[in-house]
Amino acid sequence: MLTYSFSEIGSDSLYEYLYKCIKNDIQNGTLSPGERLPSKRSFAKHLNISAITIENAYAQLLAEGYIYSIPKKGYYAADISAGRIPATAKPSPAPVKEQKEELYFADFASSQTHPDTFPFSIWAKLIREVISENSFALMKNSPSGGIFPLRQAIANHLKSFRGMSVLPEQIIVGAGTEYLYGLLIQLLGFQKLYAVEDPGYQKISAIYRSNQVKCCHVPMDSQGICMEQLRETNADILHISPSHHFPTGIITPISRRYELLGWASESDSRYIIEDDYDCEFRFMGKPIPSLQSIDVMEKVIYMNTFTKTLASTIRISYMALPHHLMEQFQQSMGFYSCTVSNFEQYTLTRFLQNGHFERHINRMRNFYHNQRDLLLNYLKNSPLSSRITITEEDAGLHFLMHVDTSAPDETIIQCAKSKGLRLASLSEYYEGSRFQNPGPGAACPNIPLGEHTFIMNYSSIHPEHIKKAIDLLCQAVQCAEHQPSSP
Amino acid sequence: MLTYSFSEIGSDSLYEYLYKCIKNDIQNGTLSPGERLPSKRSFAKHLNISAITIENAYAQLLAEGYIYSIPKKGYYAADISAGRIPATAKPSPAPVKEQKEELYFADFASSQTHPDTFPFSIWAKLIREVISENSFALMKNSPSGGIFPLRQAIANHLKSFRGMSVLPEQIIVGAGTEYLYGLLIQLLGFQKLYAVEDPGYQKISAIYRSNQVKCCHVPMDSQGICMEQLRETNADILHISPSHHFPTGIITPISRRYELLGWASESDSRYIIEDDYDCEFRFMGKPIPSLQSIDVMEKVIYMNTFTKTLASTIRISYMALPHHLMEQFQQSMGFYSCTVSNFEQYTLTRFLQNGHFERHINRMRNFYHNQRDLLLNYLKNSPLSSRITITEEDAGLHFLMHVDTSAPDETIIQCAKSKGLRLASLSEYYEGSRFQNPGPGAACPNIPLGEHTFIMNYSSIHPEHIKKAIDLLCQAVQCAEHQPSSP
Repeated sequence: MLTYSFSEIGSDSLYEYLYKCIKNDIQNGTLSPGERLPSKRSFAKHLNISAITIENAYAQLLAEGYIYSIPKKGYYAADISAGRIPATAKPSPAPVKEQKEELYFADFASSQTHPDTFPFSIWAKLIREVISENSFALMKNSPSGGIFPLRQAIANHLKSFRGMSVLPEQIIVGAGTEYLYGLLIQLLGFQKLYAVEDPGYQKISAIYRSNQVKCCHVPMDSQGICMEQLRETNADILHISPSHHFPTGIITPISRRYELLGWASESDSRYIIEDDYDCEFRFMGKPIPSLQSIDVMEKVIYMNTFTKTLASTIRISYMALPHHLMEQFQQSMGFYSCTVSNFEQYTLTRFLQNGHFERHINRMRNFYHNQRDLLLNYLKNSPLSSRITITEEDAGLHFLMHVDTSAPDETIIQCAKSKGLRLASLSEYYEGSRFQNPGPGAACPNIPLGEHTFIMNYSSIHPEHIKKAIDLLCQAVQCAEHQPSSP
Repeated sequence: MLTYSFSEIGSDSLYEYLYKCIKNDIQNGTLSPGERLPSKRSFAKHLNISAITIENAYAQLLAEGYIYSIPKKGYYAADISAGRIPATAKPSPAPVKEQKEELYFADFASSQTHPDTFPFSIWAKLIREVISENSFALMKNSPSGGIFPLRQAIANHLKSFRGMSVLPEQIIVGAGTEYLYGLLIQLLGFQKLYAVEDPGYQKISAIYRSNQVKCCHVPMDSQGICMEQLRETNADILHISPSHHFPTGIITPISRRYELLGWASESDSRYIIEDDYDCEFRFMGKPIPSLQSIDVMEKVIYMNTFTKTLASTIRISYMALPHHLMEQFQQSMGFYSCTVSNFEQYTLTRFLQNGHFERHINRMRNFYHNQRDLLLNYLKNSPLSSRITITEEDAGLHFLMHVDTSAPDETIIQCAKSKGLRLASLSEYYEGSRFQNPGPGAACPNIPLGEHTFIMNYSSIHPEHIKKAIDLLCQAVQCAEHQPSSP
């Protein structure tokens, strides 16, 4: 009969050790396929251990398929040879390259929110309240579109802040706009042609590419998307930020907005995705009305996010779908679980309901306004001042800085990097229509859409770093201008 | 000159009121396109208000595109007629049908976790610690795959609990497995053919359908996926739960596992997605080794989730990619933001690091073990006892209950519903291979894969409801059996 010594048992339990011994014998062929194993009782007697131990070991082997049983007959070693690959074939693991994190003294290319702006104590208090008061609701699965009170609070916010009439049922909450874009592709169709702005936020076209849908780039003039070129593309879905375009800051005027809505209404398959990502941060005047609010044909899908206003590391965004699309969503995609945890959905709901969000936005606006003013002031008093032109400084968390220089953008960026600054040039954001001259726009000032323009994103810069950052920037430009130009 | 009365100004500020008046005149044509507006100074004098007010109103109109300016000349009404749609065209909003929520006395079809099992006080304490000790890290954008300490903690857990060697760099954290399936489609390709288990978890094929990728259903015998039929499909990607199949509970034995790995190794494009969704809940013996742990060819993508073990409303899942796929992910999809908020990533990290997770799993296992025993005990002592066969009760949070009855499944489900019970029948989970007889499996007991089998998911049932739920269930079966059968 099979015999095993228990002298080398180590930290295993008796049954575990026995299980391993038998498994090993089956794997190395000592027990051949079909060979009968001792009955539990006789095996227990033979090994001088309890029958329960044998039973447990057999049960585990049975569950994993190393042995099989024939009722009233006994246990047999299984044939495990099929499709087996020699263990030596395992390739040695190569270290995976993570995107390496660079540390900058000042990062003008990051849209990360500033750590000091987050209302930690309020947020902590609200989470505490939610956990102690909403524990039952916290454990109840959220509807696909998000918990109703949050969607109600968002609808109220859109009403009071953007003058928009949106029912809570039209709102879908998700873990970031990137995720929502993916849902929209599933909703609107993979066969559709998607058009994005050029220049534009690169991630958007990356997401379309990653989903293997066709995506084209439509050039912009100073009023936004060029209508003629949009028509030439034959696009179905247009994805834009008409209230504040990134990175140029262009605001699409009302006439162009109506043209866009007119374009969308010409075909059933056409829709406009309106990304209103930083409408909360206008430093002058009222926020621009959303395209959604003047859409009478149910053609606009409105998108916004709390990652800009609250923290880039809290992943909550939302979209408002036209009624018929929401019906379609419920029917074909309502099976999806909401991707935002209930804990954060309920906490954000309280944050919105209790007026914290409005106060927070106002604080943030002041904070960023101050950041911008500091930055502009230091630039004005810098050695570069006579050679720079600032545009689009009245909204969002960045402005454009055109430098009158002969040094190539890439050289300036490299010199800046060597001094601990991260810069991004406008030219990096162009896909097809690089360096187009601004059109004969009326409502917008001329925007330097060409070379030597940098996007100065100041949301993540430490206020105390601003002065030195400008000094370093001036040095970087000088350094770039003194480099021998490549042949 | 343009004249407006300020007598009906209401709650608006002066500039806002003026802005609205002018906008209105442009919209209704009183001011025609190209018409020059009064200069700020003269207009201010005329209306007897400050020039600043005029300036603010003009600035807003300018920003929104209702007027345009010609430098050194003045402001002009813009042409907003293009593409405009009469406001009457707006369809009246129809209420959107949300998936209606039904309230059940006992829901045997829900996999929601039980509210009483969640460690609220520990979780609250850890969030508090994270907010007070990690505030800087909380505001730093997470890498695409998740914060490193969480991935490290998950790798450690997989090592100690599943005996798996996975580097933290191989792990991708996301807001639920549904989201991760979507990422995988983008990574592996939309042109591939995906194969899923039949019967199986319906959401998986719904996700493939929603992403418009081809998906086929492969029948199962008592050892898991039928190899021959798998080969006939020509599938590239196989999506399975070999350690505990839902809903049948089948455990794929080691021989079939090797066959599956062998199948995968035959072509470069083949991969196996191993969904290990409830490996933590085996009530007998050790957990079954994962397919990933015996894969020597980098063919297995391992998936697991905290939604089963922690709470279905905290959306954190993860996958472990083979090295070469992780490289590919970093290159082509590393731009994606992680969908789980930093707050929950850091909290879960502490929960894992401090041993809370292991203790929690043990508590949950006892809780569910007790649930199951109560349920089985009441069933054994019920009037139905002689007519029911229970299988697959040793793992997961459900078992299968076969009822010897002539009443159709649908009638039983309807009768149960009228009594406040939600039931799901096994037959609902079949796609193509409905009611196939179990194959001549050796390692697994015969599973009733046909009609009259119900999936008894007990994770969300209140312990004090169990006795009455069984009474209601017996009544429901009796009631169904007394209904006249349809002609």
